[in-house]
Amino acid sequence: MFSGAQISLYPMTDDFVGVILGALGALDPYRDRLRIETDDISTLLVGPPEVLFPAMRDLFAAAARSGRHCVLSAAVSRGCPGEPDDPICRSDEIGGPAIPLDERKRAALRAVETTPSTDQPVAAQFSLYVMGNGGHMDEIYGCIDFLKQSGVFERSKHFCTKLRGDAGAVFATLNEAFCRFGPGAGHVTLDITISANSPTAV
Amino acid sequence: MFSGAQISLYPMTDDFVGVILGALGALDPYRDRLRIETDDISTLLVGPPEVLFPAMRDLFAAAARSGRHCVLSAAVSRGCPGEPDDPICRSDEIGGPAIPLDERKRAALRAVETTPSTDQPVAAQFSLYVMGNGGHMDEIYGCIDFLKQSGVFERSKHFCTKLRGDAGAVFATLNEAFCRFGPGAGHVTLDITISANSPTAV
Repeated sequence: MFSGAQISLYPMTDDFVGVILGALGALDPYRDRLRIETDDISTLLVGPPEVLFPAMRDLFAAAARSGRHCVLSAAVSRGCPGEPDDPICRSDEIGGPAIPLDERKRAALRAVETTPSTDQPVAAQFSLYVMGNGGHMDEIYGCIDFLKQSGVFERSKHFCTKLRGDAGAVFATLNEAFCRFGPGAGHVTLDITISANSPTAV
Repeated sequence: MFSGAQISLYPMTDDFVGVILGALGALDPYRDRLRIETDDISTLLVGPPEVLFPAMRDLFAAAARSGRHCVLSAAVSRGCPGEPDDPICRSDEIGGPAIPLDERKRAALRAVETTPSTDQPVAAQFSLYVMGNGGHMDEIYGCIDFLKQSGVFERSKHFCTKLRGDAGAVFATLNEAFCRFGPGAGHVTLDITISANSPTAV
C-alpha cells in the first residue's frame, strides 16, 4: 500500500532558510527508509507510517529548538487508489485484517501511553478523512473517542480536532489516528498542523 | 449546508505579527457575511464558498504584497455530517441538483476564464477529498481533467495537484474544484497550501 506525506516547515523568522537547513539533519536516521523529493512548496516523504511520524516529529522538534515560532503542515495519505504501490511503503502498522473498533481504540491508547517524552511542547490540529466508505463517520467518531482519552486532547473545533502536549505524545497520537481508523486497506488521509513557540499560545 | 475553513497565514519574517495584522483589513469587505474565530493555530471562517474564496484570496494577496515569503494553509469543508447547519452558509454555489460531470467541468472552466487578475503571482497545491461515496475517484479524476485545462495547472504530485499563476485564477480554480466536484449535498474538503515570494520558486 502506497503511503507518504507532503510536508512543509514554516519558521516565522527572517532566517527561515537557516532554521530549515539546521533541522534537516534530524531526518538522517530515516533517510534509508524514505524516498524524499523537494520543490518550492513541500517535501514529499514516501514510506510507511512507522517511519513517517517519527521523522516528522524529529524534524519539527529540531526546528522548534531554534526558539522561533515554527509550524509544520503535512498532508499524510495511505491507500490512495490513484497511487502505485511501492516496496519502501511496506508496513506492519497498516493493511492488516479488520479488527473491532473498540479493540483498535484500546491499542491506540496503549501506544500513546508508552511513547517517550521529547521535552518539546507543541500544539496541533488535524482532520482525519476516510474515503470511499459509507460508514466513514463511524470511524471518525471512534477516532474522536480515542483522542479524548489520549492525554493530549485539547478541544474539538469545526472541521478538526486540537491537541496539545509533548511532541512525542502528539505525534504518536497522530500516528495512531492514521493507522487504526478507517479500513485497513482503505484510502485514509490526515491534514495536520503542528505549532511551537507561538506568541499567542495559551 | 455548513461550510467554512480553518486558515493560517505564515509570513516567514521576524515581523510575522506585523504582516498578519497589516493584511487583516483585506477581510473587512467580507466580515458581515462570515463568522470569524481565531486561536493560536488557525482562524475559522464560516460562510458560503462564494465569500470564503475571495476573502482568502484578498487576505493572502495583501500579505504577499509585504514582499516577504508568505504561505496560506487552509482546510476547507462543506457538508460535514457532524456539523450543524448555519444560515450564514446559504449558497447559490453548492447543494444544487446533480448535473453531469462534463457540464460541471465546462462551467468550472468558464468561471476561471472570466476571473479578473490580481497581479499577484502565487504557487499552490491542494488535495480534494470526497467522502462517503463509493465513486469518489470518478469525481477526483473529473476534477483533475478540469485542472489540466484551467490555465494554472503546473503538475500532478503524489497526494495533490500543483497550480501556478495569478492569485485571481488560482483561487477561482480552487473555488470551482470545491463547489463542482463531489456530490452537491455531499461531504467535500480541500487541503490547500498557497505560497508567494518563495526564494526557491521556479
